[in-house]
Amino acid sequence: CDQFEAAFQAVELWIADRAVLPVENSFGGSIHRNYDLLLRHRLHIVGEVQLPVHHCLLALPGVRKEFLERVISHPQALAQCEHSLTKLGPSVTREAVADTAGAAEFVAPDDLRDTAAIASARAAELYGLQILADGIQDDPNNVTRFVMLAREPIIPRTDRPFKTSIVFAHDKGTSVLFKVLSAFAFRNISLTKIESRPHRSRPIRVVDDESEGTAKHFEYLFYIDFEASMAEVRAQNALAEVQEFTSFLRLLGSYPIDITPWTPSSPRQN
Amino acid sequence: CDQFEAAFQAVELWIADRAVLPVENSFGGSIHRNYDLLLRHRLHIVGEVQLPVHHCLLALPGVRKEFLERVISHPQALAQCEHSLTKLGPSVTREAVADTAGAAEFVAPDDLRDTAAIASARAAELYGLQILADGIQDDPNNVTRFVMLAREPIIPRTDRPFKTSIVFAHDKGTSVLFKVLSAFAFRNISLTKIESRPHRSRPIRVVDDESEGTAKHFEYLFYIDFEASMAEVRAQNALAEVQEFTSFLRLLGSYPIDITPWTPSSPRQN
Repeated sequence: CDQFEAAFQAVELWIADRAVLPVENSFGGSIHRNYDLLLRHRLHIVGEVQLPVHHCLLALPGVRKEFLERVISHPQALAQCEHSLTKLGPSVTREAVADTAGAAEFVAPDDLRDTAAIASARAAELYGLQILADGIQDDPNNVTRFVMLAREPIIPRTDRPFKTSIVFAHDKGTSVLFKVLSAFAFRNISLTKIESRPHRSRPIRVVDDESEGTAKHFEYLFYIDFEASMAEVRAQNALAEVQEFTSFLRLLGSYPIDITPWTPSSPRQN
Repeated sequence: CDQFEAAFQAVELWIADRAVLPVENSFGGSIHRNYDLLLRHRLHIVGEVQLPVHHCLLALPGVRKEFLERVISHPQALAQCEHSLTKLGPSVTREAVADTAGAAEFVAPDDLRDTAAIASARAAELYGLQILADGIQDDPNNVTRFVMLAREPIIPRTDRPFKTSIVFAHDKGTSVLFKVLSAFAFRNISLTKIESRPHRSRPIRVVDDESEGTAKHFEYLFYIDFEASMAEVRAQNALAEVQEFTSFLRLLGSYPIDITPWTPSSPRQN
């Protein structure tokens, strides 16, 4: 899918069973566009994945850095490797393409010996390219968090760590947020994310149970992730209380926490 | 300055009196890199500006869209105009350069009749280019919030609306955040922003009064903006209470609220 919304539609139209979409990056912050799409569509979060951002500089076998006149990749990948690209010299131009794998695919068949792609090590394998430099992202600790979406929610469990994501809105003031946090604090439920959405001038079209795709205007919109499964009574009670205090509440999903350990990628030059 | 950090250094070294840096975007979220730099440097927020994202497609006079083979701009600008660029056709390549104004400057003197730049209307004026299309950003409601930084804080006042920005950290649990919010809620101070920082694996080097540039490891880091001036006793009392509950607190600045009304930019084609 070349667009985020196309991924939502693919799942809704039974073309795909799951969509995996980025929702936050440790340097770029939350990707509000995907939170908007979560509200506009009726899919459920069924899992999460946290992946370190790891880019490689790929070129045809035998090509050396000195030969390069052009580097192509997705605009975000180019931006994430700004320092590394600057070191290649001022004569090397940067060209944006739709995706990183597509950049690697573009270099391979056309025998482009003056062009490198920023893509994954896996793309090098797939398209027979060599890795000129590994881990060229400017920040080695940059992590992107993805959520997995499905048409049906999974059944929440209590035998392994679960997390629950909600979005809610209220009209004005700070005391509502305070009451919402009390609903979690008094039940010893830890929050792993809380964020207020920057003010918007126009309404958001929202799908919920009462209103089918109605445009709603919120002065404040909040995202909260908390460490509890919806199978737990304390989580059910907390959400009942949150509903009492807010003008809009949507349960995005209750899903297993991604506990895969990852090590910061270490820059390595070939 | 070609880098965010260079802007901080320019002010610290008295090369400039003010730096203006983006801290959040209504679709991209908070720019954590600049919050990190705020912690690493000793500058103060003295003002804020909210600007709608408004991009134009610029080319030499007489050039028509059909002539274009290449569009150049900053990677973020290229990403923000993805749909508009796709409409230009598949043969038009996108090339990333260091900044939008630089893209316009590049097109102008070299008489590049196959190349357009994405930049501001002001850049068109400066470099004698024509506006081929106005307001080509995919989302007309995208706003970026900038903060203005200086070596010395301004004197907070109470005769006009002020806002105060803080960053704080604590070690674990949700009840600290709850206590912090109570410090504001019980004094009827509204929050305009609250955000938890995604988990980081490595310590952040922080400049504060006790420790000169010490690396600190935080499990949680929070940004809060509240609607009160530090000249008000209730704000001073609230912060004293926040300091009691947290392991680290930094006052980033107390400054006039940007109340300039802005209208969403309307796409217009020439």
